[in-house]
Formats: sequence, structure tokens, C-alpha cells
Amino acid sequence: MYLTQGLHRSVQQKPNELAAVFGDRSTTFVELRNRVAQLAGGFRSLGLKDGDRIAYYGYNSDRFHEYYLAAFWAGLVVHPINTRWSGSEIAFSLADAGTTVVIVDDLAVEKDLLAHPAFRELTALVWAGAGQTPADALPWDELVAAAPIDDRRRNGADLAGLFYTGGTTGFPKGVMLTHENLVTCAMGAAIHRFVNCEAVFLHAAPMFHLADLAAWTVVNLTGGTHVMIPSFSAQLALEAIARHRVTDVVLVPAMLQALVDYPQIKEFDLGSLRHIGYGGSPISEALLVRTQKMFPDVTLCQAFGQTELSPITTLLLPHEHSLGSPRLRSAGRAVAHAEIKIVDDEGTEAELGSVGEIAARGPHVMAGYWNRPDETAAVLIDGWMHTGDAGYLDADGYLFVVDRLKDMIISGGENVYSAEVENALCSHPAVAMAAVFGLPDERWGERVHAVVVLKPGSAATEEDLREHAKGLIAGYKCPRSVEFTEALPVTAAGKVLKRELRESRLKASAID
Amino acid sequence: MYLTQGLHRSVQQKPNELAAVFGDRSTTFVELRNRVAQLAGGFRSLGLKDGDRIAYYGYNSDRFHEYYLAAFWAGLVVHPINTRWSGSEIAFSLADAGTTVVIVDDLAVEKDLLAHPAFRELTALVWAGAGQTPADALPWDELVAAAPIDDRRRNGADLAGLFYTGGTTGFPKGVMLTHENLVTCAMGAAIHRFVNCEAVFLHAAPMFHLADLAAWTVVNLTGGTHVMIPSFSAQLALEAIARHRVTDVVLVPAMLQALVDYPQIKEFDLGSLRHIGYGGSPISEALLVRTQKMFPDVTLCQAFGQTELSPITTLLLPHEHSLGSPRLRSAGRAVAHAEIKIVDDEGTEAELGSVGEIAARGPHVMAGYWNRPDETAAVLIDGWMHTGDAGYLDADGYLFVVDRLKDMIISGGENVYSAEVENALCSHPAVAMAAVFGLPDERWGERVHAVVVLKPGSAATEEDLREHAKGLIAGYKCPRSVEFTEALPVTAAGKVLKRELRESRLKASAID
Repeated sequence: MYLTQGLHRSVQQKPNELAAVFGDRSTTFVELRNRVAQLAGGFRSLGLKDGDRIAYYGYNSDRFHEYYLAAFWAGLVVHPINTRWSGSEIAFSLADAGTTVVIVDDLAVEKDLLAHPAFRELTALVWAGAGQTPADALPWDELVAAAPIDDRRRNGADLAGLFYTGGTTGFPKGVMLTHENLVTCAMGAAIHRFVNCEAVFLHAAPMFHLADLAAWTVVNLTGGTHVMIPSFSAQLALEAIARHRVTDVVLVPAMLQALVDYPQIKEFDLGSLRHIGYGGSPISEALLVRTQKMFPDVTLCQAFGQTELSPITTLLLPHEHSLGSPRLRSAGRAVAHAEIKIVDDEGTEAELGSVGEIAARGPHVMAGYWNRPDETAAVLIDGWMHTGDAGYLDADGYLFVVDRLKDMIISGGENVYSAEVENALCSHPAVAMAAVFGLPDERWGERVHAVVVLKPGSAATEEDLREHAKGLIAGYKCPRSVEFTEALPVTAAGKVLKRELRESRLKASAID
Repeated sequence: MYLTQGLHRSVQQKPNELAAVFGDRSTTFVELRNRVAQLAGGFRSLGLKDGDRIAYYGYNSDRFHEYYLAAFWAGLVVHPINTRWSGSEIAFSLADAGTTVVIVDDLAVEKDLLAHPAFRELTALVWAGAGQTPADALPWDELVAAAPIDDRRRNGADLAGLFYTGGTTGFPKGVMLTHENLVTCAMGAAIHRFVNCEAVFLHAAPMFHLADLAAWTVVNLTGGTHVMIPSFSAQLALEAIARHRVTDVVLVPAMLQALVDYPQIKEFDLGSLRHIGYGGSPISEALLVRTQKMFPDVTLCQAFGQTELSPITTLLLPHEHSLGSPRLRSAGRAVAHAEIKIVDDEGTEAELGSVGEIAARGPHVMAGYWNRPDETAAVLIDGWMHTGDAGYLDADGYLFVVDRLKDMIISGGENVYSAEVENALCSHPAVAMAAVFGLPDERWGERVHAVVVLKPGSAATEEDLREHAKGLIAGYKCPRSVEFTEALPVTAAGKVLKRELRESRLKASAID
């Protein structure tokens, strides 16, 4: 199969129905097919050949959608750029991937990115924005006016995209995903209804991120309609749901929280919404209660995975979201296409309930890291992707992710998984968010340190939180120091940047 | 992916739930996994190696189920035998496939098959029956007592089965289907809920047939429970549904008709049933009305395809079963994994609405015919399987199958597709079934001839039927001769053996 197959199928089955909506612009499936065939011709006219990379840096839009489809149609490899990255990080990924054609929009101007030397060495810069076309850039409409070409139909094991993994672990690496990787993940996700068939889907999460792209592939596969907002805000998301009768959306918990807490939410007609997929972390009981109260008929589904797994590997299904169930803290169970197991340090399968490294196998496992055979061989062993996440399985196959292995704290010779401490802290009524990591300690080797954000109008002391935690987890796991702050730094995908937090504390203590 | 993957997943997620039920015998997933690992060891102990074939001839049972799983686990290629076939047809397929290990049960004794010379040349004959083990046969329990082996995990493009196509067209050919073919078909079928996830599924249709095997793969993939009855009868099927709380079943329309017409149906508690998949032909409005009256909450889904397509290619979904809709006569639309088109005699894509040959492409297309490169090349062109079925597409992608190309009648220079005539006749209130084909005619070249079965207690004359048909289809399409009979010969899959009917009429007219 191949990633434009769903577009061909929709043209056959619903040619004049809505394929994509962005603000006041919309296209039917047959119009989209024609635009994509021409845009693909435009991409090829820049000298790009089968397997060459093409990058996109910008806000969510219908053009981002067309970029993905036209790149696949033209036989190219997509290289979507994380918009939180600095110019030098972007320059690194362009050079690493050998990408010389980049599409940008107004965001690149706002961030003054085009001044970066890396953008002066490109073969072509394409302008997909609303503002004025920068000097030397080719306008989008010019490319869409090119002569159409036939779908190149790269498929199966052919490379479809390079996805540079975020900065939460080590140096950026280009994860190679094939057409089979992404299509299989979409089929498995569709079987379990991570996104419903023929959904009217809102791209509220960033489209450069694989979590959103996974939903994008399901919507294409099953003939749904894409609705985009430029970037997430509760106001924009609620407006789009009401205006375009959105049925399905994928969010990170922080976005969901912003949505259900939005003061004017009652002013929107949200009756079309029936399903919310989320990922990045489990949902808290408190957020689940508020979501169920706000949307009594909306189903929830949690996905867990990573870029190297295309990304979906386990799902916690709607009927598994029962208040009070211990499984609500799990990441669910293996999807139809995935096998999962827990391995110990020697790579042997761990006993049920024992914590070890989460490994996954299946047709959704990446082809490898771009130009990094050693780093690939270190994680891909006998077909099993070793995720670097620590977790355990219960007797019914539920996966509990306890931490990034690298985030594990060793205090007084005991292993402490920070997620466990964070969960304990977050169950205190005054706590909104918590990040836990190890800091050097003369006596214990490392001490458990917590950075806590309190809910507005709530109060709690360090001692309150320690007492609360002691009632839930072993004493050696409780934070020895607690720090209160206004907000935590998060990635575009909503993950707390713990490494960054920790490094600033290490620097501060060195200065002390 | 590979065909035992679902078993491993179910063992992880629901080890102690029911995997299979046959009469008073049942197994949990963990028990089944252990039996399969041992049975696979037993199969290998017969000298079979990766890719060797192993055949099964018998009634539906839990052992048929274990045979499939253990053969895949052992790295073997399944070769299920059509139980309607004669000894010489079976001997042909065994020799053609090079199959030297055959599993049989009481059916082989009842049909006196073991006396056939082909059964004296086998490497091993395995007895899976209830009766006494024949001389020289190995008992099933002995093989299941072998030392367990690890799953060989043949997968992807590895050959999984040889499926000899029925005698309705030409000489039997072994269709080669891979693990990827069958798993992809199961994933597509699961997305569209041809069978629901985690169904309690009744194998009422013959398990040797690919239509039932397609459902079998979905049930395995999604962790459902298999329930078997030895062979179809309304009484056995209804008993099994009531006793085992069956939720899903796949039938041919003739079986569904027998079910809803069963006089004692009201005596069974059928409240668990929620979904009926069917294939082989569209459902008549009359049968749809009776089914909806009998099972108001049961959904219906029609599948169309052929052995060479693993087999599912189009589906008519539950919500597309509206009384009075012209689409009820269609075979539905392409599933997520399949592409379909209509081609003319030159292989060019036909215009919308024009009748031509139905062609399909996708990862569900067979690897080819076993040892028949020429016949493979004749039907597999640029990845497109040319089905030999005639049909057309409407503007929304609905596929209307008008006939086997070879069944087309040319009368007075006009093409007549017999299915169209049959549909017209079947819409008469007195008609239960009709088969239409051409017979030689001095004036017209061929004349349209109909063989009709009337409903019990109904009456109609040849003239009545002709008048009725004239109100629906062009005059040249109406049957010039009508013959009434008690029953039509059908294949095990419920297809009318039109070639057989026609040949007997040709012989009769030659004698005349």
C-alpha cells in the first residue's frame, strides 16, 4: 500500500465531498487530487527525483496537507520540521538529511528564520504563507499551476519520511519511516478507532509532529475530512469544531485541559464532537472527570508509542477509561499490528509485573536512523525496537510506562522512577503539574527533586506534599526537595522538558 | 505480520478467556497456544520443513482451527481441501501441490475417500476424527503430545496457503496466498467491521473455504472466540448461537434464508447475535425484509472478492442496506486496502457506468498460481488482478457485478448478462431462485434460457415470468425459454453451478 492510496479511493467513492477545510478555503476530493497531481509536478520541476527529501516549516494549514500528499505522489520523502527548533538545530537536520528544498510560511518570517545561513544554500525556497512572498522564494500557486504528473506510487518498503526526534534524548536523529510503516500504523489505529472512519478531523496539534501525522494517515485511509487551525488555542479549536462540525480530534492532555477549562466553552455548539484521541501521557482522573462532565457522549482513547514506531503501539480504548480503575494509569494494550514485551538489562524477557525496557516488534518499526547504522543497531535487535522507556505489563497485557530509562533516579542504591513520584504528587488536590528528576546529593548519590505547579488559588507547602506522597509511595521515593514554579517548559508535543529543567538546576547549584 | 500474531497477542491480553468452542470441548488462549506449539512440533516430526504443504479434509471443528494455527506456527503451507470434490479432483490437487501429509476425519470415511489410490501414496495420514482411527493413520492426540517448538514466524511475503479454486471455471489451480495477503485482508475487513472486534464467531460456512478463513483471520487478529459446527444446518447453527452466545457469523445468502425460514427459530434465544456477514451474491430485498424482521438489531455486511484476492475486495456496509436502494444490488465499494477499476477488452480503464472486467490491486492480490506462470501472467498485469467478472462502477464507487464474463450470452448480436435476467426473475413474488444461461438457437445464435425454482406453495407460469421480466428489462434480455425445477445445484460456497446446468441442457438437446 502507499500513502496516497486513500486519496484515490476517496476520489472514486466521494469525489465531490469535502476533503479539506482551512478557514474560508476548502477543496473536494477531486479538486484535491488535481491540485496534488499538479503540485507534485511542480515539486519534480525543481529537479527532485524519487527518494529526494523535501521539508516543510510552518503553521498547520491546507497547504501542509497538500505538501504531504504531493510529496508522496511525486515519489519524494517528507521532512517536516519541528517549529520549536532553533535555526542551528534546523540547519543541522537539513544538512544531515541532504534536504535542499524547503517550504515555509509566515512563521519562518516571524521567527526570523530566513536570515539563517542554512536558508541561503537551498536549491529552492517555496513560500506557502499568506504574507508577501520573500525574495528568491517560489510562490505556492506557481507550483500548483505546474503540469500534473501520474502518482509515482512509491510504496511498501520505500522510504516515505524522515522524522527528526525531538531534543528530549541526545542529539537529533532522522527516523526513517516507510510507506508500509505509516500505512500499517494507520490500519491498526483504524481497527481500534483511535480515530473513527470518515471522521471530520481537526488538526489542532502541530502537523509536523508524528502524533498528528498518524491521525492524518487514518483520516486519509478511511476517507475523512481534514480541518486545520494554524496552531492550538482553545478559542481557535472550539470555533473550528463548532463551525465545521468536527467529529474527532487528537490532543495532548495539556490541550484537552485548556479546552475543558476555557471560560467561554458553553458559548460554542460542540454537539458534533464524538471522539478525542490523546497521547503523550496518561490522563489524570481529575481531567477525565471534567472531560466527561463537559462532553458526556464523547469517547476517549489514549495512544502510546514513539517516532521509531510510526508511532502507535498501544492504545487505552474508550471502554477502558473507567474512573477509579488502576488501568487508567496505564498506556493500554498492544494494537493489532504490534507486539510488545519487557526486557531486562541482558535483553531477556522480564517476568510479568517486573519493570524493564519496553520493546516492540511489527511492520510499524522504523527502517532505522538515517545514516546512523551504529545507533540503529543499538536499538533494533532481532526486529525488536528497544524504546528506552521503562515499564511493566500486568497479567492482562496492560502496559504501565514508569519512566524514560535515562530519567531513572538512583537514590541510596534504590531505583526511583520519576513518573511514580509525579503521579503521587499530582494526586494532591492543590497540584496542577509536577516534574521529578534526580539532583546530585552527597549522602544519597542522587536526591529526588520535584518541581511543582500549583492550581490557581490553591496552596500547599513542601511539607504538605511530602506527607501526602508518603501515604502513597515508599519513603525513599518521596522528594527530598520541592520547588514551586508558575509553569513547566514543554515540547510541542506537550512533553515536559525534564532534561532542560534538570540542567538549569544543575547549573544553578554549581553557581551556588 | 504473520498469521499466528493474533494468538500471541491474545495470550498476552486475555490468557484465560475462551479461544475456541466445539460442542463440549473448549480451550483458553493459553491452552490453545500450548496445544498449537506441540501440534506444530508434531507436524515437524513428520519430516515437514518450512514451506512444505499440509492438507486437511474434514468437517468444521476445533481441530481444523488448530490445524491452521499449528501449520502456520510450524512454518508450513496450508492446503485445505474442498469436501465437495471427488477423489480424482483431490488426487489432482495433492499431486499438483506436492502435498504428502493429509489430515482427515470421519467425513473421509463416510465418503469412502481413503480407498482412493492417492491416499496410499502419502507420507503420513493423520486422523482428526471422532470415530476409530483408520489403519496406518496417526491419531491427533499423539501429534499434540509432541515436544513444543518455537513459532517459526514465517511472515510477510512467505507463502501461507494454497487454495485450489473451485470447478466453476476451468481446471483447478492452486492460488498462492502469503501471510501479508491474508493479514492485510483481515486488517481491512476489521477496519470496516465485516466481522466485529473480539466477536464470538460461529463457523457455520465450511472452514476449508476462503470466505470462512477470511473471517477466521479477523477473529484471530482481534482476539475473538471461535465456535464451530461440523457443517451447516439451520438447527445446528441456531443451537450454537443460543448455547455459546454467538455475536457474529458469516453465511452465504442460501444459509441465511434457511436460518430465517426455520420453523422452530422462535424456540432459540438468539439475543446475542448482532452481526451477519455474507458473500457470494447480493441479498434479495425479500430476504433482507425477513432478516430485518427476524433480527431487528442485527447488522448486515456483504463481501465481494475471489480466492485470488484473499478474498475481500469490496464491502456493502450495514448502513448501505436500505430497502429500496438500488445499491442493494451492488457489491459495495472498495475496502481500505484495495483498489478497483473496470477495464475494457484492451485493458484500458472503462468509462464510469460502462461494463467491463473488474480488476483489483493491493497487498491482498495473490502471489500467483502455483507452478503456472503463464496462467498467472494472463491475469496479473502490472499488479492488477483481472478477475474474470464483469461489472461497472457508479459515480460513488459502488461496484455492480453483472456476470462472469464467460457466462455472458450473445443473443441476436446483443450482450446479455445473465445476472441481470436472474435479478428480474427473482423479483417475481413466486420465484425462490433462478439460473440463466445461453443455449444454442438457430435464429438468435444463442437464446436466453432460465431454470427457475418456485417458492413452496407458490405458482407461476412461463408466460407470467416473461411478462414480469418485460416490465423490468429490455425485451431481448427476457428468457425465451423457462424451465421449472425443484432445486439448483450449488457449490459448497453456495454459488449456483451454472456451467453444470448448462452442459446437461446441451446434452439433452443433442439427444433430442
